Amino acid sequence: MLKHLKQEVYEANMLLPNYSLVTFTWGNVSGIDRERGLVVIKPSGVEYDKMTPQDMIVVDLQGNVVDGTLRPSSDTATHLELYNHFPNIGGVVHTHSRWATIWAQAGRGIPAYGTTQGDYFYGEIPCTRAMTREEIDGEYELETGKVIVETFTRKQPDHVPAVLVKSHGPFTWGKNPKEAVHNAVVLEEVAMMAWHTEMLKGAVQTPMQQELLDKHFLRKHGPNAYYGQK
Amino acid sequence: MLKHLKQEVYEANMLLPNYSLVTFTWGNVSGIDRERGLVVIKPSGVEYDKMTPQDMIVVDLQGNVVDGTLRPSSDTATHLELYNHFPNIGGVVHTHSRWATIWAQAGRGIPAYGTTQGDYFYGEIPCTRAMTREEIDGEYELETGKVIVETFTRKQPDHVPAVLVKSHGPFTWGKNPKEAVHNAVVLEEVAMMAWHTEMLKGAVQTPMQQELLDKHFLRKHGPNAYYGQK
Amino acid sequence: MLKHLKQEVYEANMLLPNYSLVTFTWGNVSGIDRERGLVVIKPSGVEYDKMTPQDMIVVDLQGNVVDGTLRPSSDTATHLELYNHFPNIGGVVHTHSRWATIWAQAGRGIPAYGTTQGDYFYGEIPCTRAMTREEIDGEYELETGKVIVETFTRKQPDHVPAVLVKSHGPFTWGKNPKEAVHNAVVLEEVAMMAWHTEMLKGAVQTPMQQELLDKHFLRKHGPNAYYGQK
Amino acid sequence: MLKHLKQEVYEANMLLPNYSLVTFTWGNVSGIDRERGLVVIKPSGVEYDKMTPQDMIVVDLQGNVVDGTLRPSSDTATHLELYNHFPNIGGVVHTHSRWATIWAQAGRGIPAYGTTQGDYFYGEIPCTRAMTREEIDGEYELETGKVIVETFTRKQPDHVPAVLVKSHGPFTWGKNPKEAVHNAVVLEEVAMMAWHTEMLKGAVQTPMQQELLDKHFLRKHGPNAYYGQK
Repeated sequence: MLKHLKQEVYEANMLLPNYSLVTFTWGNVSGIDRERGLVVIKPSGVEYDKMTPQDMIVVDLQGNVVDGTLRPSSDTATHLELYNHFPNIGGVVHTHSRWATIWAQAGRGIPAYGTTQGDYFYGEIPCTRAMTREEIDGEYELETGKVIVETFTRKQPDHVPAVLVKSHGPFTWGKNPKEAVHNAVVLEEVAMMAWHTEMLKGAVQTPMQQELLDKHFLRKHGPNAYYGQK
Repeated sequence: MLKHLKQEVYEANMLLPNYSLVTFTWGNVSGIDRERGLVVIKPSGVEYDKMTPQDMIVVDLQGNVVDGTLRPSSDTATHLELYNHFPNIGGVVHTHSRWATIWAQAGRGIPAYGTTQGDYFYGEIPCTRAMTREEIDGEYELETGKVIVETFTRKQPDHVPAVLVKSHGPFTWGKNPKEAVHNAVVLEEVAMMAWHTEMLKGAVQTPMQQELLDKHFLRKHGPNAYYGQK
Repeated sequence: MLKHLKQEVYEANMLLPNYSLVTFTWGNVSGIDRERGLVVIKPSGVEYDKMTPQDMIVVDLQGNVVDGTLRPSSDTATHLELYNHFPNIGGVVHTHSRWATIWAQAGRGIPAYGTTQGDYFYGEIPCTRAMTREEIDGEYELETGKVIVETFTRKQPDHVPAVLVKSHGPFTWGKNPKEAVHNAVVLEEVAMMAWHTEMLKGAVQTPMQQELLDKHFLRKHGPNAYYGQK
Repeated sequence: MLKHLKQEVYEANMLLPNYSLVTFTWGNVSGIDRERGLVVIKPSGVEYDKMTPQDMIVVDLQGNVVDGTLRPSSDTATHLELYNHFPNIGGVVHTHSRWATIWAQAGRGIPAYGTTQGDYFYGEIPCTRAMTREEIDGEYELETGKVIVETFTRKQPDHVPAVLVKSHGPFTWGKNPKEAVHNAVVLEEVAMMAWHTEMLKGAVQTPMQQELLDKHFLRKHGPNAYYGQK
């Protein structure tokens, strides 16, 4: 069942330790088959070097396990909430990668200080609000997804494919699981650089000019993009 | 004698350089056989790449060498004090790992700024008080153990399996030597992230909400844990 | 066509991931054949581990593709502007290497705090001014080159073979592509050290003495150099 | 000639890239044969992966080349000054290792904030004063050695086997070349940790207690040492 997607999700999960985005089992990648409305996700708490493509779990968009013998990631409900509200995304990644988590713990979004961020994110990477006691004590992982969706009320998730969950860590997404991991790597890179940019004495403390952000985002994305091969 | 535990303690010691927690010989792991009241510990000042399982030293809970030809770690008395007072622990680790040592040198505990810490430590990771001249000039390593135990007078060592010894470095523990090393890795990770969280401009300067800490600690620990496989 | 130079430019490009100067495809190296007035440059957006020497693109100094089937790097016009105005350089490198980019994002040049910088750069490594909306909306990559050239109006590019483009990242150059990469490595090293030098409490906040800068730059460069083998 | 010492000095030099203490050729190790009054040192500007034991240069204590076809390290006169004034040392190392160089560039000694430093250095690792114009324009490398020796006027070089040369970088020494490299590794480690200790909010801003420094230095050094094997 969904053999190809299981392989894709498995490979995307294996990229996390390769890119030093996870310690132990602190991360998970999922992918969706939009036609069938089924999501493939990493099992919970399984070590990367023991995992196989067959261990991937299939769930429907309500979170029912459709295929697989292990428990799905404990963050499954958050992934599903994103698939349910962001119609163009095909893959979701959650990690506790160091630099992104630092911003999440500080409760701050990452300002777009430079074109590296502008090449991938059209402006600030936002941080969610603190969750209420009711949200935390209720269906916590689902509520985490809801607070992310709320954060994108006036933001296009396709233009800013990442979020920081306050006091927790980042989620990223993309057209497919591999692109979601790609965005997780970029997020970590820009989080590290933004942290050090702010601390520098006499540093500019405002994001780059809007026209420069436009230029960089649009030369890689949209109808007139001219970066890369056709 | 205690062949299995020697192997276990040896392997746990070898994880320290693998996880980049030690430079040269600056670290040691021990494990206990509670039934026999015997502790297996790394020999003092032996290089990791020359060490074998047979080099591990067996001592009783009073510190007498029961088996082994080399001197036990100079920190043995500290390990024993922890085994004598923390009845549920089965392994102890001491390192000078960089980020944890930085907090120890600063004389500060690590606030629980995020869920990564909450998943393993139920709140702040404490730092011991400064030792007195008498303690330092007396049985120094034993006194180091006593000051750790004192730090846990009103704290459950099973819920916060790590401590920072002021001006020195961290000790961690766990159900067995491997879990103690696991906690040493997590400690290093949260120490690095907490350092950078505090420095960020406009950062939240308080630990995360108590209800979020409860949620994360309890979803991995205790009777209703639902992280990982059953 | 230009087989030797293609090989040289290919090898210099492959050094970028080896020295951890690039993430994904965020960097490019070019080299020039001054006699023929032709420049060899990396194709745009091609992954390093899939690239071959034959993929290198040949362009003339006006940016016309003379040889090659792929699109040249989107930064080609910047490289060409440098070759057109800096007559002694034979190779150019552009990256988003972390530490240099941090200074670029902060909009600051890197002061010469120590002899490591003095051995390669005769004083501060400058940061360009912010580009105007007209420059950004016009021929952006060419204008980027122009603002670099403007920054060197009163500076010898042979004596300071690097620049930080504001809100963007570094360009370096050298006698040939390999030396340009060498300078990119040195830039990253001095950018990291200068950042931390400034932050230290009680640190000297001025560049090193002029006479020490003279000594170090001149013992490696110029007619009386005595570093290295003859 | 001095075949054994050449091998020893060669191997100690090769440890520098292994321990990530050097970039390119920015470092050198020497060793002395006290009986013959001859010093073996790395040749100048030779890449580590092309160097052989036979390339090592032999000089006398006045700096005359006695054996070898290449030029000796440009820092040779500094090494010789240390051998001439510090009678117990058998090896000297110079690098531009990142964290030690940061302190050197800031013009500050490294306070003994913790026992990691106390295990190897009996107190602060000093930074030299700024050199005068006359010293820099004169026999610069010899004068660098003199200003180091001056820094140890009231300090025992055997108890503090490292120094930071202001605006430049560190020198370390030891009983032999290998121990000098060992001390260079420790220096880098404590320089990194001290930097971060100072920056932490609410951190203790004074060195550790004298009695703790005594305890740690003396349990590894001197007649009553009890660390390691007999």
